Amino acid sequence: MTRYQSLADKISALIREGVLRPNERIPSVRSARRSYDVSPATVLHAYRLLEDRGEIAARPRSGYYVCARPIQQLPQPETLEPRGSAAVVDVNELVFEVLNSIKDLSKVQLGAAFIDPSFFPLKKLARYLGQAGRRIDRNTLVEYLPPGHARLRAQIARRYLDYGCSVRPEEIIITTGALEALYLSLCAVASPGDVVVVESPAFYAQLQALELMHVKAVEIPTHPREGIVLPALAKALRQRRVKACWLMTNFQNPMGFLMAEEKKKELVNLLSRHDVPLIEDDVYEELYFGKEKPKPAKAFDKRGLVLHCSSVSKYLGPGYRVGWAAAGRFATDVERHKWMMSLATCMPAQAAISDHLIGGALNHYLRGLRQALVQQRDDMLASIARHFPKGTSATRPEGGYFLWVELPRSVDALKLHRLALEQEISIAPGPIFSVRRKFNHCIRLNFGYRWSPRSEEAIRTLGRIVGSLL
Amino acid sequence: MTRYQSLADKISALIREGVLRPNERIPSVRSARRSYDVSPATVLHAYRLLEDRGEIAARPRSGYYVCARPIQQLPQPETLEPRGSAAVVDVNELVFEVLNSIKDLSKVQLGAAFIDPSFFPLKKLARYLGQAGRRIDRNTLVEYLPPGHARLRAQIARRYLDYGCSVRPEEIIITTGALEALYLSLCAVASPGDVVVVESPAFYAQLQALELMHVKAVEIPTHPREGIVLPALAKALRQRRVKACWLMTNFQNPMGFLMAEEKKKELVNLLSRHDVPLIEDDVYEELYFGKEKPKPAKAFDKRGLVLHCSSVSKYLGPGYRVGWAAAGRFATDVERHKWMMSLATCMPAQAAISDHLIGGALNHYLRGLRQALVQQRDDMLASIARHFPKGTSATRPEGGYFLWVELPRSVDALKLHRLALEQEISIAPGPIFSVRRKFNHCIRLNFGYRWSPRSEEAIRTLGRIVGSLL
Repeated sequence: MTRYQSLADKISALIREGVLRPNERIPSVRSARRSYDVSPATVLHAYRLLEDRGEIAARPRSGYYVCARPIQQLPQPETLEPRGSAAVVDVNELVFEVLNSIKDLSKVQLGAAFIDPSFFPLKKLARYLGQAGRRIDRNTLVEYLPPGHARLRAQIARRYLDYGCSVRPEEIIITTGALEALYLSLCAVASPGDVVVVESPAFYAQLQALELMHVKAVEIPTHPREGIVLPALAKALRQRRVKACWLMTNFQNPMGFLMAEEKKKELVNLLSRHDVPLIEDDVYEELYFGKEKPKPAKAFDKRGLVLHCSSVSKYLGPGYRVGWAAAGRFATDVERHKWMMSLATCMPAQAAISDHLIGGALNHYLRGLRQALVQQRDDMLASIARHFPKGTSATRPEGGYFLWVELPRSVDALKLHRLALEQEISIAPGPIFSVRRKFNHCIRLNFGYRWSPRSEEAIRTLGRIVGSLL
Repeated sequence: MTRYQSLADKISALIREGVLRPNERIPSVRSARRSYDVSPATVLHAYRLLEDRGEIAARPRSGYYVCARPIQQLPQPETLEPRGSAAVVDVNELVFEVLNSIKDLSKVQLGAAFIDPSFFPLKKLARYLGQAGRRIDRNTLVEYLPPGHARLRAQIARRYLDYGCSVRPEEIIITTGALEALYLSLCAVASPGDVVVVESPAFYAQLQALELMHVKAVEIPTHPREGIVLPALAKALRQRRVKACWLMTNFQNPMGFLMAEEKKKELVNLLSRHDVPLIEDDVYEELYFGKEKPKPAKAFDKRGLVLHCSSVSKYLGPGYRVGWAAAGRFATDVERHKWMMSLATCMPAQAAISDHLIGGALNHYLRGLRQALVQQRDDMLASIARHFPKGTSATRPEGGYFLWVELPRSVDALKLHRLALEQEISIAPGPIFSVRRKFNHCIRLNFGYRWSPRSEEAIRTLGRIVGSLL
């Protein structure tokens, strides 16, 4: 890093920490050169950089002032896409273009589906794994067959209990990650040709699963901060035979919202009145930024209609492929489908994750991870506020690691995605989250990576490309 | 073991080793009591036991003689079930009853789908696993995403090459066991409502996969020693729109036959003429008893129409869940379905299996395992010949670990299955291998478990129950 960059970062830090406050005058060039023992040219250079970043602004004949806090300046999106009719799903080509880009580690991973792998406790897990492998012998092999290892299932039931959600170990089936749990749940409640309700936008893998199963999707408008619009859902339930509803209530992918507890209750009651099962994808449940872990809709289910799917992949790493479905009254079906589709879940991996859940180290680790994610969210929001053109809005999630960024309507997110790739930056363009390829002025950005000058540079580059597409 | 049982076993061993040959007179009671230094009562007791087992027979006023070799006496089945029309598949209830019984280790595992777990090199694998876990770090995680780890795929391609089958690493996708490979292959070539051709009898998990995918099955008559009847297959291909053919050419489950090489060629050519893909389940490929590993039909495929699915689960153990599909022209589709259905295959497991494949120890281990299996096959066949009623026939597989036993027509295999369970013996009744619940006078027996007095006792008990059902 050059001297002027380093000086700019120091002043940035003072702004971020509130030492220099919005609209406050920052040290003059003369005073700064004395304080930091650098040449006047270095100070001027640094100030110009900060100006470029949108952190300070020159006022004629008066000096440089801190800009109003950029995050506060950045509005949050409010737009709802109107509801469409049931549609056959076909989002594949686009999704695989994005998935391919995240396998290339040289890219800045703003389109990635996981956090910075440097967070994952891979060494610790490997230690547990070695021990677990040795523990599995001829007599214990069968214990890992579906529904999965009894101790692991009891531990998972215990974690549910910790935040007031009563789940019996008997309804938990261990799966190859949450994705398999979701797919098995879908198979348990719907058949080819059936109609399933999804959010709009929805996680692309969900749309792909519907496609693979030849199930039709009805997209329900979903508010960027409040979640699925219940009156629209109620209308859909009245109008057609819906076999299931599949959504995320906590830190939804891609928008990041947290549905209010009261609304979760209403959702469960509404579905219950229509006898429609809910597939609840809750893989970000542990990555909450608030004081308490939010309850899932499952907590309000009295009739066994909610199939709650989760995994440890989002915080311990995707490599072990251990997830589960707490499948309520569908537990037997899900277990059977597990036998039929992939038999067991990797046995030493089940044992290693179980060992890891016992140790108190997990909760300590999660606390640190959550703190890092909040800071990274704010860094990215501030950076977007500095570098993206007017008319941009972004969600401010209270958990998970995705921002949903709405760009001015004229911007084509698919074009942006391709131009960004040329600059070694991956993003997730809006249309992959919709059966009808809507949201083409939106993108999902991953703030799960450690913030660095390269991240700042990538957001600045993105902002520049967005500007060129206006 | 009592003194007389021990004496009986010694004489059994002499018969098995050919020291005492069929129709030869065995030592008189007087001579035996001197040779073995036991009482005359013990000798008489032992001879009566051998008589009960069908190994020797008393001839009036002449003494005891060795029976003609029991295995030779036991005929092989020849029956073909006639072909039916396309049918929706529903074998579940029955299959899960059988699957549940194999989770209970107190049962004699004649119905099991795996070999004796004491064969599995679990300790060695655990060592590799510990090392592998430590090797996977933030930079190498992505290498294990679909299609799977490059080195492992190269090793698998190399093993194909070793027996004259040319498969490019690029067409190999690593999966959660062979079962997932088969399911993904099915998704790649057929949609709900389509018709797929299967053998009759066929592996029950195959029928379950069709059921899960809502694909219809046409069962083609399959000869217990020669495999699928090609003229019947050709007729089916002419008569209806068949989307795929799914079968096993090597040591088929449940019958155990090995299809002749020439016939495999004809099969591939026939399907190729109709442009119909072949899903080839070849999980027993390494468990051949002959001099050379038999080629799969895949070896004769020039057009990329064969999706060859296999795994290491049958010899290294089912616990790691590492399998693959060599999917020819369907490789991209299979890879995409893998992303969609379960994302990755457990990463440390991929690495551990790869390490294990490098070591020369695998081939040495496999040689020993094959020898043990041949001996166990002969022990079981001899035991069946001794204890099952006339009218019983059994296949004599040249690989794998399943016998297909045809009982007299009047025997109800489902009744036999339930009565056997009461005696703590699991078997696989014929109807679970057929969409139409045919083969109700047949059972599949697993000879993969180490032979013991308990095995002999179980076969004797089974034979007794069969006799009672005549």
